[in-house]
Amino acid sequence: MISEKMRNMVKNSSAIRAMFEEGKKLAALYGAENVYDFSLGNPNLPAPAEVAEALKSEIDACDALTLHGYMSNAGYEDVRQAVADNLNARFGTDYTVPCIVMSVGAAGGLNVFLKAVLDPGDEVVVIAPFFGEYANYVANFDGKLVVVPPNPPTFQPDVKAFEKALTAKTKAVIINTPNNPTGVIYDENTLNALADAMRAAQARFGTTIYLLSDEPYRELVFGSAKQPYPAKYYENAVSGYSFSKSLSLAGERIGYLAVNRECADFDDLVGALGVATRVLGFVNSPSLIQRAVAKCLNASVDVGFYEKNGAALKKIMDECGFEYVEPQGAFYLFVKAPDGDDAAFCAEAKKHRLLLVPATGFGCKGWVRIAYCVSPATIEGSRASFKALAKQYLN
Amino acid sequence: MISEKMRNMVKNSSAIRAMFEEGKKLAALYGAENVYDFSLGNPNLPAPAEVAEALKSEIDACDALTLHGYMSNAGYEDVRQAVADNLNARFGTDYTVPCIVMSVGAAGGLNVFLKAVLDPGDEVVVIAPFFGEYANYVANFDGKLVVVPPNPPTFQPDVKAFEKALTAKTKAVIINTPNNPTGVIYDENTLNALADAMRAAQARFGTTIYLLSDEPYRELVFGSAKQPYPAKYYENAVSGYSFSKSLSLAGERIGYLAVNRECADFDDLVGALGVATRVLGFVNSPSLIQRAVAKCLNASVDVGFYEKNGAALKKIMDECGFEYVEPQGAFYLFVKAPDGDDAAFCAEAKKHRLLLVPATGFGCKGWVRIAYCVSPATIEGSRASFKALAKQYLN
Repeated sequence: MISEKMRNMVKNSSAIRAMFEEGKKLAALYGAENVYDFSLGNPNLPAPAEVAEALKSEIDACDALTLHGYMSNAGYEDVRQAVADNLNARFGTDYTVPCIVMSVGAAGGLNVFLKAVLDPGDEVVVIAPFFGEYANYVANFDGKLVVVPPNPPTFQPDVKAFEKALTAKTKAVIINTPNNPTGVIYDENTLNALADAMRAAQARFGTTIYLLSDEPYRELVFGSAKQPYPAKYYENAVSGYSFSKSLSLAGERIGYLAVNRECADFDDLVGALGVATRVLGFVNSPSLIQRAVAKCLNASVDVGFYEKNGAALKKIMDECGFEYVEPQGAFYLFVKAPDGDDAAFCAEAKKHRLLLVPATGFGCKGWVRIAYCVSPATIEGSRASFKALAKQYLN
Repeated sequence: MISEKMRNMVKNSSAIRAMFEEGKKLAALYGAENVYDFSLGNPNLPAPAEVAEALKSEIDACDALTLHGYMSNAGYEDVRQAVADNLNARFGTDYTVPCIVMSVGAAGGLNVFLKAVLDPGDEVVVIAPFFGEYANYVANFDGKLVVVPPNPPTFQPDVKAFEKALTAKTKAVIINTPNNPTGVIYDENTLNALADAMRAAQARFGTTIYLLSDEPYRELVFGSAKQPYPAKYYENAVSGYSFSKSLSLAGERIGYLAVNRECADFDDLVGALGVATRVLGFVNSPSLIQRAVAKCLNASVDVGFYEKNGAALKKIMDECGFEYVEPQGAFYLFVKAPDGDDAAFCAEAKKHRLLLVPATGFGCKGWVRIAYCVSPATIEGSRASFKALAKQYLN
């Protein structure tokens, strides 16, 4: 008696769940320490100490009616002001309180945005490889997902292909940099080229095309790499943020949407984001953690931990001879399945107690994602298994 | 450039927002203490002390990766076990872990349930007066809202009218007891009669009809009144709960769905609820507060506070000669607009600095809702204004 749409989703989800179950079975057979689970993007670093301090100080100092009560659907005004000020100081933006809509993580924010703007049949352009959940989010509002094919080996977007993907029905473009699953950063040239293409399409079709920049990995940037702030390159931009990775708060469901002041129909759009927050059943982002993150806007987990993990994993890949994309941020290594069959590669990997994710679900057949937000011991322990896998594939 | 559907929602929401703005204007003119805002269901009692204690003890004692990290979409297993145990002990139910899906408040849970079961055109029956947001939630998934007319003066459902509302397309029935906006409790006879009607319709049409019992006011019951547990009267029942009112945590967005073990297609349904939680962008209910409420399942705000508020307000209504429904729970007084025009009555009330909500939005023209989750001073202060209003209407 569940809905038809849902029946398919459950079936597809079961395939992933089956992998987790398999992982548990492997752990029972070989011991958890001998199973190398690189499947999930669940941070392995504790939240910075500032978070516990901020939580406790809010519990002690904030009036309980304010701390746990309803506020505006868009969030506490002082929290939104703090977020705006912080972004303005760091990125030279000019956000004000109405620009900021606190959200239930980035996933909640993305759904709120899509609810606000999509009519059935409207097109949303994504650039492969892309976070697979975008497909579900767009389908929630009867939008049509348009996929720009992946562009190996750099995985910077193919701008010509992007231009072709824009039509009179394009309502929004979703980008994600640093990228899940490649770890690649879209540089200034890329962001300018995408913006030019969208501006040209807007002029050609007499439409508005919103850029939705999904930025949960914004703070996870390695070495000398720089992540330009995408909303500065395009007027009609909305940034979606989550504190899941930068503060290791994935379970808390806290993030925000930041709407450029020069966005087309600004008042209508921010009004609609508030209403969408309410009618989708989010109502508002959780109150206590909302107040706490406002006090931790300059805090971060140790990004060097992930960078070191990445380096250790790359070394193993180099020793094995596997081809991969040089990550500039996030915590994923994107590795080529030597024979192009990502599903079979992951199945073989599992026999060596390696849990990897085939990238077909990210719109990029032939590659696999290795999430290295794990303990260094997991990475070191996996060496023999990767070598055995390499022997099968590369000898 | 916002969507067509959303444009209408924003327009309707603006009418309510205009009232709040008017309230602020009145407060600036006359002083906040001279404006009697009965419009919002935002609890006026602080959360019980147990909540702060539980939050702090989780922050101190729980491993940070567990406390703030991803868990199953349905919630922590130990939290779900605690909820199941608590319900079983209190209501003689037989819930197990898979029955419980933690949700982002009741609003999140309702949306998750509707996403899981509704195909476009499926009908959802509600009994007027009903919480107006149900209409939006059903529309989110292209369901069709079917309204059973109100049944004054008891506002117990008209069972004959309910029977007629059930068709071959009925996928779900939403009830809400203690009721927002009437404060009425559906008694055993009512629950049995509704269950019999649904069973008869299932047999007649060869379908499954789910009962979704929305229970944010479950614990707010006055004097000797008893709220029977609705899911015990019907097999295919799902209970939606929120800690918003019982623990004054409206801003925290924490609640759950409890699915009867004998529910049709149980495995499919609970699987779909987990997937719906993910794809709608909730992902999971917020982690810290999820763990905290699991330690406060027997805690409650002082229900006597609301009962006393209700008594004080009833006294004023009696002095004025306004007709109202005797509330058995929740924190709303449902008052008849003497001339049947609820919108005009609320507009006149506003001139006396009384902010009330017309019940047309609850599917019950001619009545108004007075939310008495306010300070006793607000109620006492409002006497002169209500008397002036009565003079206009009843002399």
